[in-house]
Amino acid sequence: MSKNPITNSLRALSADLAERRITAQELLALSQAAHDPALNAYIHWAPDFARRQAEAADAAFAAGIVAGPLQGIPTSVKDIYGVAGLPVFAGSPRELPKSWQREGPVVQKLRKQLPVILGKTHTVEFAFGGLGANAHWPVPWNPRDRKTHRAPGGSSSGAGVSLVEGTALLAFGTDTAGSVRIPASFTGTVGLKTTLGRWSADGIVPLSFSLDTPGILTRSVADAAFAFTALDGATVPALDGLAGCRIGVGKSFFFDDLGPGLGATVDTALNALTKAGARLTDLALPGAQEVYEIYFRGGIVSPELYQFLKRELPEWLETLDPKVKRRVDFARDLEAWEYIDRKAVYAAQSRLAVAALQDVDVLVGPTTPITAPALTEFADDESYGKLNMRALKNTAVVSFLGLCALSLPIGHDAAGMPVGLQLIAPPMGEAKLLAVAAAFERAFAQADLWTPPASLE
Amino acid sequence: MSKNPITNSLRALSADLAERRITAQELLALSQAAHDPALNAYIHWAPDFARRQAEAADAAFAAGIVAGPLQGIPTSVKDIYGVAGLPVFAGSPRELPKSWQREGPVVQKLRKQLPVILGKTHTVEFAFGGLGANAHWPVPWNPRDRKTHRAPGGSSSGAGVSLVEGTALLAFGTDTAGSVRIPASFTGTVGLKTTLGRWSADGIVPLSFSLDTPGILTRSVADAAFAFTALDGATVPALDGLAGCRIGVGKSFFFDDLGPGLGATVDTALNALTKAGARLTDLALPGAQEVYEIYFRGGIVSPELYQFLKRELPEWLETLDPKVKRRVDFARDLEAWEYIDRKAVYAAQSRLAVAALQDVDVLVGPTTPITAPALTEFADDESYGKLNMRALKNTAVVSFLGLCALSLPIGHDAAGMPVGLQLIAPPMGEAKLLAVAAAFERAFAQADLWTPPASLE
Repeated sequence: MSKNPITNSLRALSADLAERRITAQELLALSQAAHDPALNAYIHWAPDFARRQAEAADAAFAAGIVAGPLQGIPTSVKDIYGVAGLPVFAGSPRELPKSWQREGPVVQKLRKQLPVILGKTHTVEFAFGGLGANAHWPVPWNPRDRKTHRAPGGSSSGAGVSLVEGTALLAFGTDTAGSVRIPASFTGTVGLKTTLGRWSADGIVPLSFSLDTPGILTRSVADAAFAFTALDGATVPALDGLAGCRIGVGKSFFFDDLGPGLGATVDTALNALTKAGARLTDLALPGAQEVYEIYFRGGIVSPELYQFLKRELPEWLETLDPKVKRRVDFARDLEAWEYIDRKAVYAAQSRLAVAALQDVDVLVGPTTPITAPALTEFADDESYGKLNMRALKNTAVVSFLGLCALSLPIGHDAAGMPVGLQLIAPPMGEAKLLAVAAAFERAFAQADLWTPPASLE
Repeated sequence: MSKNPITNSLRALSADLAERRITAQELLALSQAAHDPALNAYIHWAPDFARRQAEAADAAFAAGIVAGPLQGIPTSVKDIYGVAGLPVFAGSPRELPKSWQREGPVVQKLRKQLPVILGKTHTVEFAFGGLGANAHWPVPWNPRDRKTHRAPGGSSSGAGVSLVEGTALLAFGTDTAGSVRIPASFTGTVGLKTTLGRWSADGIVPLSFSLDTPGILTRSVADAAFAFTALDGATVPALDGLAGCRIGVGKSFFFDDLGPGLGATVDTALNALTKAGARLTDLALPGAQEVYEIYFRGGIVSPELYQFLKRELPEWLETLDPKVKRRVDFARDLEAWEYIDRKAVYAAQSRLAVAALQDVDVLVGPTTPITAPALTEFADDESYGKLNMRALKNTAVVSFLGLCALSLPIGHDAAGMPVGLQLIAPPMGEAKLLAVAAAFERAFAQADLWTPPASLE
């Protein structure tokens, strides 16, 4: 092999493994060689655990068994999922009780395909935060800036880092209000936020049962589509190009108050789409402003997390990261009828949003209004509160409106940090979303805006 | 015809109509002749509306069209459902805005079969109460006692009365915590509470979106099974008898503190089942006590109704029936996390209850611990509060645990009022529930305990 096989797409690697052009153990060795402990992607780096899985994958290949497309693929899992054989801390100082470490359907479905899980990646405590801050554990270093310690994005704070350093080729995160899409946007990777209920959230320590969704991060959209199909079963159609593709541009909400150079990068990307034949129109997403105002008043996540901790893990309330505690404390004042009312508004606005999305193939806008800030910008709790809300703005409203979405990198901002574009689709629209995003990815590579490290298909 | 055709079963009547041995207009005339305005079953008695439907049913029959098994059947609908052409008051002093009068899927499915809807039956205001009280409208008279004005049961307070007076042969009610089963029990009719979500609650003014279910009342279990299949599609298997039928008896919760003569009547009925070959065992329903304690502390219905009224009908809060207002006011104090916690307990206990029900075909106990009280017993708000809670005890826990259930009459108590037996089954167990209940009905008729007015099949 002339180049490092780890730069191949998941599809090519999966074929290489199945054809025994490379073994899972060889692939694991390349992955482990890429590990940079200083980046702190992993709370639990598990070389023995990984080796046994690689041996099992190879033994199966040797016996002529391909258990699934992900067999032998180096994978990281956010430390909020139960994975039999590894502990769960969920970003807290202590290991959770065994009843909250159970492996759920998503990880079970993954593991039946004999992947190689390298370890558990860092998370914001109980996944409640968009920047990646954690008072108990080291905050992963965003590898896109080797000089300044910048936010990796949260709450799946180690997921994007594990991809960029080159250990994992597939990373599992969770997304309640942006926790897959923001790390993807901040680290220049691809993040898929699935529709609520499409993939079970069982076996994941809950933040908000009303909003929690499992999701994946990958190096490219092509990889995301490959992993999605492996895990979901639905196939992603291949588009010939973008001719005639109807793209709504969310100017009226998603483009407000963008960080330096961010808007220009998005405009360049949109121009590339127009050149590729897509038809762009402005589309104001109904409900975005309404559900954002509720979010600003405290939303629904705080009382759901507070109830969970109070009932299931009361001692954890004592040791909460102050940045998390501050938000959980909101919950104590909220009345039941207002919580119910907020959910009723979400549901009513969701119906309007879904109807409006029928006019386009996807709606797009910047994934976040900011790129990865330096940790020094949000050291105190008040700065954190403001910056965290700002980071979550564009992703959170999509979650509250019950939609699915994907973030893919499109270039860099004035600080040289990656910029992500959020593609938004109606509930259960993942296959089409991935198909359109894959065509975007090819158009951006052709226009020299962003070429993913994994080979394009 | 030698006897009044109205005493036939729904199945026989449906065949008579289809074979044109009787016309829908003739049947309507018999139904209207039975109407006793003094009983006050109907808030809106609609003879012209009914006549036009009977003409339509007959015109279809004449053209050789049978649109469904309920074509031409005299039917009453609780005035909380939207029925195109009739107003909705939902037990309140004013007609609701048009947006809350829309016909939903259950009524649409009914009307496509060309039944004859006679009018809208009385309800407790916003269906929030188990006895049938209403400060704005006359409380229907329970026709089982012609001397004393006794509770008709609520909240579907006119539904059972419409069956007993003989106007309706099928009555639509709704059941949130017992509002179909209690009127059935109090009036000596059969009431089916469906599993949450089995039949859509759209087009019904909401009391509690977490618990509201449409349901039906009929004169016999055989009629309930016939109407259920007509509306649902699922067929009810015919049982040969009760030999080997496994019946759990809920001694530990459902038999507490029964009214005079009620326990003896239930024991007699259980003996008849044993004689018919059923195998009775004690079964303590897990979770019953736990969810009842939450109910006692205010439950989840109050904040859901309060939110609905506050957002959608704020002026209605001003004029609420004091007996309803008192319970809605509970909601103002409840915190969001506790509301969430109560629902979490319901869900956790439901899993245990469903598992325990796997050991039996049905679980049985008295539908209510009391039979229909005189209105004088709950004239003041405090007596009402206590008696209402007591009436709802055995049905409410079944709702909170997510189960389905049926009440059928089994005899009388010391005051000569009907006693109902509640049969309880796991979620989506309606068809088996109706099959077992039909076998119960035959056993009770054979033992001369209760013979329904409609001919048995």
